[in-house]
Amino acid sequence: MKSLRIAELLQSPATDAEVVVKGWVRTKRGNKNVAFIALNDGSCVANMQVVVDLAKFDEELLRKVTTGACLRVDGRLVASCGAGQGVEVQAEKIEIYGTADPETYPLQKKGHSLEFLRDIAYLRPRTNTFGAIFRIRHAMAYAIHKYFNDKGFYYLHTPLITASDCEGAGAMFQVTTLDLNNLPKTEEGAVDYSQDFFGRPCSLTVSGQLEGELGALSLGQIYTFGPTFRAENSNTPRHLSEFWMIEPEMAFYELEDNMELAEDFLKYLIRYALENCREDLEFMNKMWDNGLIERLNFVLNHEFKRLDYTEGVEILKASGRKFEFPCDWGCDLQSEHERYLVEEHFKRPVILINYPKQIKAFYMKQNEDGKTVRAMDVLFPKIGEIIGGSEREADYEKLSARVHELGMNEKELWWYLDTRRWGSAPHSGFGLGFERLLLFVTGMGNIRDVIPFPRTPKNAEF
Amino acid sequence: MKSLRIAELLQSPATDAEVVVKGWVRTKRGNKNVAFIALNDGSCVANMQVVVDLAKFDEELLRKVTTGACLRVDGRLVASCGAGQGVEVQAEKIEIYGTADPETYPLQKKGHSLEFLRDIAYLRPRTNTFGAIFRIRHAMAYAIHKYFNDKGFYYLHTPLITASDCEGAGAMFQVTTLDLNNLPKTEEGAVDYSQDFFGRPCSLTVSGQLEGELGALSLGQIYTFGPTFRAENSNTPRHLSEFWMIEPEMAFYELEDNMELAEDFLKYLIRYALENCREDLEFMNKMWDNGLIERLNFVLNHEFKRLDYTEGVEILKASGRKFEFPCDWGCDLQSEHERYLVEEHFKRPVILINYPKQIKAFYMKQNEDGKTVRAMDVLFPKIGEIIGGSEREADYEKLSARVHELGMNEKELWWYLDTRRWGSAPHSGFGLGFERLLLFVTGMGNIRDVIPFPRTPKNAEF
Repeated sequence: MKSLRIAELLQSPATDAEVVVKGWVRTKRGNKNVAFIALNDGSCVANMQVVVDLAKFDEELLRKVTTGACLRVDGRLVASCGAGQGVEVQAEKIEIYGTADPETYPLQKKGHSLEFLRDIAYLRPRTNTFGAIFRIRHAMAYAIHKYFNDKGFYYLHTPLITASDCEGAGAMFQVTTLDLNNLPKTEEGAVDYSQDFFGRPCSLTVSGQLEGELGALSLGQIYTFGPTFRAENSNTPRHLSEFWMIEPEMAFYELEDNMELAEDFLKYLIRYALENCREDLEFMNKMWDNGLIERLNFVLNHEFKRLDYTEGVEILKASGRKFEFPCDWGCDLQSEHERYLVEEHFKRPVILINYPKQIKAFYMKQNEDGKTVRAMDVLFPKIGEIIGGSEREADYEKLSARVHELGMNEKELWWYLDTRRWGSAPHSGFGLGFERLLLFVTGMGNIRDVIPFPRTPKNAEF
Repeated sequence: MKSLRIAELLQSPATDAEVVVKGWVRTKRGNKNVAFIALNDGSCVANMQVVVDLAKFDEELLRKVTTGACLRVDGRLVASCGAGQGVEVQAEKIEIYGTADPETYPLQKKGHSLEFLRDIAYLRPRTNTFGAIFRIRHAMAYAIHKYFNDKGFYYLHTPLITASDCEGAGAMFQVTTLDLNNLPKTEEGAVDYSQDFFGRPCSLTVSGQLEGELGALSLGQIYTFGPTFRAENSNTPRHLSEFWMIEPEMAFYELEDNMELAEDFLKYLIRYALENCREDLEFMNKMWDNGLIERLNFVLNHEFKRLDYTEGVEILKASGRKFEFPCDWGCDLQSEHERYLVEEHFKRPVILINYPKQIKAFYMKQNEDGKTVRAMDVLFPKIGEIIGGSEREADYEKLSARVHELGMNEKELWWYLDTRRWGSAPHSGFGLGFERLLLFVTGMGNIRDVIPFPRTPKNAEF
């Protein structure tokens, strides 16, 4: 008989039908006549209660049914007397696929700290919390693909290994096949990269945007969704060395269109989570962040405020608030500033635009004031910036002058500049850090807890 | 007025409505009274014909309308007299977003070789062929996510940077932040990896499977879809140094279930392509491979033949066929052998199972004969192996013995072996190379032509 997943079985009526359930034991309790096994198969946060009439089963077998063991249970789906569950399984046969020695198995039923679970990241998806987080992670990834597909965007795979460094956005990891204990040298004594795999120094990408623009200027509307790397030695709850990023890029979009898309996109994702991950969100709301669902609805139900950076700074200066970091025109805003605007001043998400050019990347379209660029940052409650984007400079002369002005290597960017030489067009795009989104949607506070296998300085385990 | 994409406009009735189209000029032709501009915006392979009454437009402006230039055209959507198109746009206003100097722009209307286009990979999505390929690539990626989502699988992001080497599947790229021109050394004179970013040597993953198994043994059914790397120095039309791979992994699946899933999955993808990429497939069929659509239907309409490796070898030996490579029991099959079984002997796709253990990976479940493992390869016409998978060894003792037998480093695999210590379960999975699938679905012959920015030895441009 084909087994059904517990998520489906829990929706079924109690028909006394024969069923097979397979999963891992969360807990076993009971009395001298009957045992109750809470079985979970990862399909949902809820467990299936398996009721075992002790008289019918071998004692030796039941002794092996401990937290973490994997079972197959054949039985009947009957109405449950327990609170909060419609059905349970009356066991007729139990097969043990794999035991879990209580002396050694790390995940006993007591609560574990997130720090401890990070150390055993290879086992933590077996807990309720991480089961919920990774199901939400899946749902958000799927919603992203569905959103763009339904809008006629094409998913573009930009390269991971690259010989260019995009925007000088951050420290990079070098990729090499040279033997570090026996490096080939040139006559001048430098490392001979002509003998490296790609014949030149290469790194892991910090952004797919520049290649994404090539896609937009041919296919019209594209998005990337792939891993991105930063070799910064920063041990904070907001940074990963390897993370996933979504970067849509659209020909013929100006800044206004870009803002509209970003707002619509974020609201779509949040609505999708509320509609498709209800149980997991309620679990997270109860266990980790009791403002979570309220905050999701807050974003969903408010129009995002559009505001010039310059006005934003004036509001902050006039606020009378003592901030930890200064806030003058020309400074990058800190999370505390962003949150003040969102949570206290406007009481809704904010899209800040027209930033000073010196704090933004070279490729952003310059405004006529000569001082600002058509950048936009979307600011959210609790986490601050969730999206950063801009209209791109489409004019070859202006872009190339800016590259010079910043002392960048024009020779490395020849292919990027070429797109403005031939068939250039107004275009815009933005970047969403996937884990940043997940912090917002799950309510978790540490970014290492929303990715299955976090990479951070000195940590590449599993 | 909001502009519509050409794919949508071409489906509209000729209502004489005012429209705006934006796109790139493919060709301009005409006579002394009228010009016909073929405009493409990447939304589909077909162009929108723009009709320009020369008397109404400035000559200087029209001189800039050359192949590759980017335009905005305001006009009226009218019935077309041209063959194969229902509507065209009667131009009323033309704005040039970006010119494309015919003296320098590389993509003139004459046909270009694939080799030449590979050299300008940053521009090739502007051609009909690569537009079609990358739209099909998008459709297949989306179909993969949709298939698994609809079946209750969770998308799991396995790590890219890793300290373990999976199955010794291939040469790996090293990832480091050490300064190669100034390497820190230990007292013994070796490279001091304690000073490297992760405090140990790290590489780019060759497979997410081992981590995928962790996901399956907690969430039940997962799949990965991410970049994968091989540092082999092989310059062939079938190898990339960076490619994308899909690896589903399912708890409670035995080999039979695994085969069923693989067949259902591949047929779903091919059906999706036929239903959603019809125009692009017809274009590819006409231009590059006139057996393409027939081959797609061939796979769709035949049940895959299941066959033991041992029987397969017997058939090959009895075939009387002279093969380039020998084919004895214990040898890995070559593409010519696989294609003989599929194209000539069975005349349908084949799933070959129960391979000799010495030619398969350590984690595959051993059969009772002591000689074979529960591996499966799905073999397709034209390309040979498209999927490789297996039931996994779930027994701790057997797996650990095999690790020893092969002289592998058990200490590096502690976390993988642990999954068999606690709550082990029967489970299976397989891997599909995304570009291998795309070769099959697009009919292209060189794998560098189905990924936007191919990475191969000595090539990491763009």
